Parts: sequence; structure tokens; C-alpha cells
Amino acid sequence: MSNLKDLFNPRGIAVIGASRDPTKIGHIILKNIVEYGYRRGIYPVNPSVSDVMGLKTYPAVSTISDKVDVVIVSIPNTKVPEAIDDAGKAGVKHAVVIASGFKEIGNVDLENEVVRRARRHGMRVLGPNIFGYVYTPVRLNATFGPRDVIPGNVAFITQSGALGIALMGSTILEGIGISAIVSVGNKSDIDDADLLEFFDEDPNTSVVLIYMEGVSDGRRFVNVASKISMKKPVIVIKSGRTEAGARAAASHTGSLAGNVALYESAFKQSGVISTKSVEEAFDFVKTLSWNPLPPGDRVVVITNGGGAGVQASDTLADDGIYLEKPPQDFVEEVRKILPPFASLANPVDLTGMAPEDWYYRSVKSALQNSGIDAVLVLYCHTALTSPVGVARAVAGAVDEVGVRKPISVAIIGGLEAYEAIKHLTNLKIPAYPTPERAAHALAAQLKYRKYREYLIKKEQIAS
Amino acid sequence: MSNLKDLFNPRGIAVIGASRDPTKIGHIILKNIVEYGYRRGIYPVNPSVSDVMGLKTYPAVSTISDKVDVVIVSIPNTKVPEAIDDAGKAGVKHAVVIASGFKEIGNVDLENEVVRRARRHGMRVLGPNIFGYVYTPVRLNATFGPRDVIPGNVAFITQSGALGIALMGSTILEGIGISAIVSVGNKSDIDDADLLEFFDEDPNTSVVLIYMEGVSDGRRFVNVASKISMKKPVIVIKSGRTEAGARAAASHTGSLAGNVALYESAFKQSGVISTKSVEEAFDFVKTLSWNPLPPGDRVVVITNGGGAGVQASDTLADDGIYLEKPPQDFVEEVRKILPPFASLANPVDLTGMAPEDWYYRSVKSALQNSGIDAVLVLYCHTALTSPVGVARAVAGAVDEVGVRKPISVAIIGGLEAYEAIKHLTNLKIPAYPTPERAAHALAAQLKYRKYREYLIKKEQIAS
Repeated sequence: MSNLKDLFNPRGIAVIGASRDPTKIGHIILKNIVEYGYRRGIYPVNPSVSDVMGLKTYPAVSTISDKVDVVIVSIPNTKVPEAIDDAGKAGVKHAVVIASGFKEIGNVDLENEVVRRARRHGMRVLGPNIFGYVYTPVRLNATFGPRDVIPGNVAFITQSGALGIALMGSTILEGIGISAIVSVGNKSDIDDADLLEFFDEDPNTSVVLIYMEGVSDGRRFVNVASKISMKKPVIVIKSGRTEAGARAAASHTGSLAGNVALYESAFKQSGVISTKSVEEAFDFVKTLSWNPLPPGDRVVVITNGGGAGVQASDTLADDGIYLEKPPQDFVEEVRKILPPFASLANPVDLTGMAPEDWYYRSVKSALQNSGIDAVLVLYCHTALTSPVGVARAVAGAVDEVGVRKPISVAIIGGLEAYEAIKHLTNLKIPAYPTPERAAHALAAQLKYRKYREYLIKKEQIAS
Repeated sequence: MSNLKDLFNPRGIAVIGASRDPTKIGHIILKNIVEYGYRRGIYPVNPSVSDVMGLKTYPAVSTISDKVDVVIVSIPNTKVPEAIDDAGKAGVKHAVVIASGFKEIGNVDLENEVVRRARRHGMRVLGPNIFGYVYTPVRLNATFGPRDVIPGNVAFITQSGALGIALMGSTILEGIGISAIVSVGNKSDIDDADLLEFFDEDPNTSVVLIYMEGVSDGRRFVNVASKISMKKPVIVIKSGRTEAGARAAASHTGSLAGNVALYESAFKQSGVISTKSVEEAFDFVKTLSWNPLPPGDRVVVITNGGGAGVQASDTLADDGIYLEKPPQDFVEEVRKILPPFASLANPVDLTGMAPEDWYYRSVKSALQNSGIDAVLVLYCHTALTSPVGVARAVAGAVDEVGVRKPISVAIIGGLEAYEAIKHLTNLKIPAYPTPERAAHALAAQLKYRKYREYLIKKEQIAS
């Protein structure tokens, strides 16, 4: 087990800078910890008041007699080194430094001093300049971001603060279940590789999403990422992909986003799934975290609109996935329900007159067929059917077949389509508003499967 | 004026196959025409009943004594030629053939027969195999798609039926205002070029969106598209962009989607904006239809999250738009409102502590500055501000400055961010859930501006 075990499973957590003022970060974090339901010791530290939110406060961490593994540090930057010393002496193992005003504004010395003092006590530092962290298996939300994070199997590491908090909110809107969210900020000590080592072993995490501007130790990142990628997909939003973007990143974090080509090559080597936008990354997270991995890449596309089928075929081809003729037994089963002029190639065109039952029967048949590895369902809202009805039909087929197979659904239309998408994502069935996004997200899974096999073979040859 | 004038401004419209049965297409279309508010003559044609929806029916078009310019034909395929003859004799100018069962299922002869008979009477044919058409300036919705299309300045031509109807619904959800929607189906006679000629002259249309699987006369399309592109942007979703997609399209419509590279080159030549997905196309429609064209491409990015700024910089660079240092007078004005550590490069980083007022003042200042051509506003939902508050601040600045400048906004977060986006799009301010989509949509406008200038210069040299 990685040495970050106690960060994510602390026996006690202290909030240095806990405040009664509801506009203070030290207040919001404490409130989130309490209200999200953390069950072990919570210790506000504030020398000027006796209690905060009904909890007894302590003047310093060293005055807490119970075991404290983590301190959240939300005080002015210049006071941080002293707080670290006090916590270190008290045997604290991890300092989560929320405070800003370090390397990101040029205060390199102050940041180095914090790390030096922490190391002296064998303490690890997360941050500084972060919004905190979340670990849902122990109901810990030590952030000043949104509180009601949905528990699940996705770990999200973010180098950006404001964007990270905003995306935390997006996970709730999109129904994405979270195991952990970690704001890494200046990465003075704990970095992406350390966290990947932890998530590699973490049974609660099956997908890792990283928003990264740069890493300092590229070789170590590649090593660790290659290892975890054989077990779990790692999706990276690499900010500063272009020279222009890298310059913007440099002015933002003070860290050089580095040679663009170098990162691309590092991601390729390590099997990391590189994405260009937060939407693409979130779309991939849904298929990769909600679907099982398929044994192959034989996709069947089921649609009620030829146009949607063509758009999906184009997107899949862009991703190197080519549609083949569906298995004969599947074709024969579907032929029974369809009008004679329906196209039984791939995409299977149920025609614009397809009622909900045709979706139910054809999707069920595809899920049951051993010659099909994954199913892409496209539905254009027409006058004849209701989007939620089709969503229910698809969900019913998935439910009845029991053994899950990768599936991705597009529901195209207006407000009712939007509601049907919600219905499916609540059931953890990946659903999107356009055929291209549904196809691209499914392709990400098929591509990861292939790459994973390649990594495993490479490893076998090497050992 | 193009010869399609009477199609879009008919003195009277007859529905052949008007039905009392609410599940019939001939019923839904008549209902849409009546309820969307068409004010001129509406004539149901049905020999077996005396009235439909309180309107007197006629046994044939030739028995209507008032002027009828358009017939909507929603009867079985084999009966269409006869109906065309009757309408032609009665002086009808346009037949809108909803009926399917023609070339798309191999009935080429029947389709040719329809066109031959129509031509004999000087009649033009839209379709067959379509869902109808809309022209909002005369409140005409002769489709079996959604009724409450939002009037506006975007014309949408679609070769796909089910996808087209679904996207009609999407325009309502996305707040996109429509001048016309035209389902072209098999394009037996009226095609994209004919429609572009009409929309070129149409004062109610300022952007054209085409979902296209293929055109038969490529040269004419390039000529007409080049001409209109000098005035109005034409956005194309070319389905069957890839060889695999083209094959899927061939099995769907029976029309060959054609050589992939040929289309790309035709679009380049004619200044058409080619998109890969319906989402991209819709995103572009918003900036191109709601914003004025800028005089240049000097963009300023205003953000409260460095990460969002970097993502936007990357996207803009992908699109060939490079951020330059903002004008000095703008920098000095913004410096007054910001903390000393804020970055006054481009992106301008208001920092995570930016309240709504900083957005108001910096956006207003950018809109007023003659050294800035377009403004990209990025907002990450943090604990300190409300997304709707920021949306109001941005809208307030736009409103106060009066003269519109191209603007594009990203609001990143959860449900409140979604609502803030709605707030802005209701005011026709382009707004998106991610920095990349907001940046890409603004870039589409800047690229179109450049290309338009090139086309105009080319034309001047040639003449």
C-alpha cells in the first residue's frame, strides 16, 4: 500500500484556521467535513475562539490528545511554516495546505520552507494553493467546493483550482460518481505519480481523470501511469497542449507546461487516454466507469434515423473503429420485428417508424449475442415515440439481460430528450445528446481495451 | 428573386391527405399549419370527409377556387403522380411531397414519374421522403415535427428526416431562432443550391445550416455557396465524411455520399464552414447568428480560473487564433479593479476571488475598447459567486455598451451553471458549458470573417 493511505483514511483530521465566519474558507471546509458525514475525529484549530459549529476548538494541533493524521491548513501564507512544525511535532502525517501565496506568485522560498519543515517530521504535503480533497469511501469532503459529491468509482486529480471546483459541480450535474477528488495545486511534494500509485491499489477507484498543466518528473509519471493503465484507465486533460496554451499556463502557475510533443509521446507510451476538452474527458469517464470492458471491438449500431447512423459511423471511423456486418443470428432475430425495407447492415436502421418495443427487442437481442461486443443506440425524437419511453425500453433490455456489455446511447431532440438522457445516466447507462458524442465515448472504451492488451503483452515480454 | 418565392410565401396551401386521425401524418401537418398561425388560405384535401379540424375539405386540389401555390402531399406513394397532375392543372407551383417509398427504397421510376409530371406543369417538387418545411416570417410550419419553433434568422436545410426532426427539437431547447427549416429528402428536384439561392436573397435569413449527405451537382453547389458565403455564413454538417460513413450513407439514402476529399475541397473553395458534429454546428450557429461580425480577430479572454484560460488558449490556437497582449488602456482600467497578483496578460485572470462586479467592469471595458474585436468570457463556478449573478453581470455590460461586439461565454459548473447558460442564451448571448466550446464557437466567427474577406477580394480581382 502506498504511503498516502493515512491521507485518505485519516484517524482524525484537524482544520487549522477553522472559522465561525461563514464567508471564510476555514469555515466552509469544516462545514463540508461535518455535513458530508465524516465519522472520525474532527478538530477545529483556532486560538481565538472556544468552539466552531458546536465543536470544541484547540489553540494548536499539538494540544489535541487524540490521533490526528491530517491537518487542513487554511491560514495566511506566512503562518504556514510554523503550523507545519507544530503539526509535525504532534505526529501528523499529512498537511493539506489550502493557503495560497507561494510559488504561484513567486514565493518559491516560502514554499520550499514549508516542504523542508514537513520533511523534517516525515510529513507529506498536498498543495499549497488548493481547494482540498475528497474521499467518498470514508465520507470525507475536505474542500470548499460543492458538498454533495456523488459517491462512485472515479478519482479526479486537478492542478487547477477554480476549474477543478467548477468541474466538481459538473460531476454532480452529470451524475458521475466519485471515489476521490484531489486538488494538487503547486504540487510542492505530493504529485500525480504519488496519487496514481495510491489509486492503482485503491479498490474503490476504477477510473482516474487528471487535469494536468505539467509534471516535474516525466519519467516517473510514465512508469507509474503505465503500471496503472494495465488495470484502470487514466484520462488526462493536458492543458497547455499548444505552444500558445503552454505560455498561458506558464503565466498562470509559474510552472512550465513543457514541450508539447514530449507530453503527447509520454501519454502514448504509458497508455494514458489524452483528451482535448473537459467535455470529451467527462464523456469518456461515463463509458469507462459505468461499462465493463468488452472482449473485442465488434460494435453494432441501432438507430431510427439513417442520418444519425452515418454521423456515428463517421465518428467511429475517425477513432479507428470500423463497423462490420452484424452476426447472422442477430440479423434474423431483428428481421422478425422490422418492416421489409429496413436496412439490416450496420448501422441497423429501425426506420423512423420504430416504436419503443423495437428498441427494447433489438437492444436486448444485441446484448445477448455473443458475436457482438458493444452496442451503440441512437434515437432521434420523432412524432411517433417518447424519448423517456425509448430510454426506459433500452434500460429495460439492459436490466433484463443482466450481464452488462458496453453500451452508449444518444438521445437527440429537445427538452424531452434531455430528460431521457438524465433518466439513463441516473441508471449509469452512458447517454449523450448527439450521435457523435455517444460514438466517440464508446470508441474510447474500445481503444483503451486494445491499448491495455498491448501494455500487458509488452510487460509479459519484458519480464 | 429566386423562383422559390411562392414556396415560402404561398397565397394558399393545400394538404392532400389531410386526416381526422390524430396519429396520421396528414393530420399532424395540418394541425401544425393551423396552430403555428399561418394566416392565409389553408385547404385540407380529402375526398372521404367533409371537414377536418373545422375546416371544409375538398375532394381534389382542382376543386379549390382560391389561389393555391403549394400542395403538401401526404398520401401513399403510388397515388402521388395523379395528385401532382391534378395540382398542376390547378396552377399550383410547388409540390411538397412528404410521402416516402421512392428512390430511397429503389423506386426510382416512380420518383422520376413524379418529377416528369410536375415539370409538365411548370411545378417544382420538394422531396419526396421528407417531413415538410417551415418558414417563420409567414408563421408557416408545414411539418410533422415539433410545432413551437422559435422565430429567428437561421435557415436549416436537412437531408435526413428523423435526425432533422430531432434537431428541430434541439433548436427549441437551445434557444436557436429559425427563419426556415427545409427537409429535402431525396432531392428529386429542389436541392441545396436552389435553396441557397433563395436564402441568399432572403432578408429574414442571416445564417444557413445544412445537414448534407451528398449533392448531385457539385459545381453548381460551389458556385452558389461561394456567392452566398460572401454575405452570410453557410455551415455544413457533411455526413459520410469518411469512407465508412459514406458507405453507411449509401445504404441509407441510396445516394452516393461521394468522394470524401472532393467534398472537403469543394467546401474550402466556396467558403463553407465544415463541421464534424451536430454539436459543433449548433455551437457555431449561436455565435454566427447572434453576434455581429468583428472587424478583426483581436480576442481578449477574461477568466476567473487560470486553467479555463489555458484550455481556451489551446482551443483558439488549434483554430489558428493567437492571443496577443491586450491594449494598454484596457490593461490600466482593469488593473484598478484587480488584486496586485492578478495576471494582466491575455487571458486576463480575474483570479478565483473575482466577484460579479469585476466581470461586469472588465467585460464592459473590453467591449468599449476599440483595440479589442471580440471577447471570450470564462467563469468557473466557485464558492464565492453565483453563476446567474455572473451571467447577469455579463449581460448587463453587453446591454449597457449597446453596440454589440462578438462575445462568447463559458459557464462551468453544476446545475446553477446550466441555468446561467439558459439565462444568457435567452438573451441571445452565446453561452456554453465548457471553455473549449465557447472558444471554438468564437473562433468560427473570426475564421469566417477572414475567409469572407478573402472571397470578396477574389471576386473583386475576377471582375
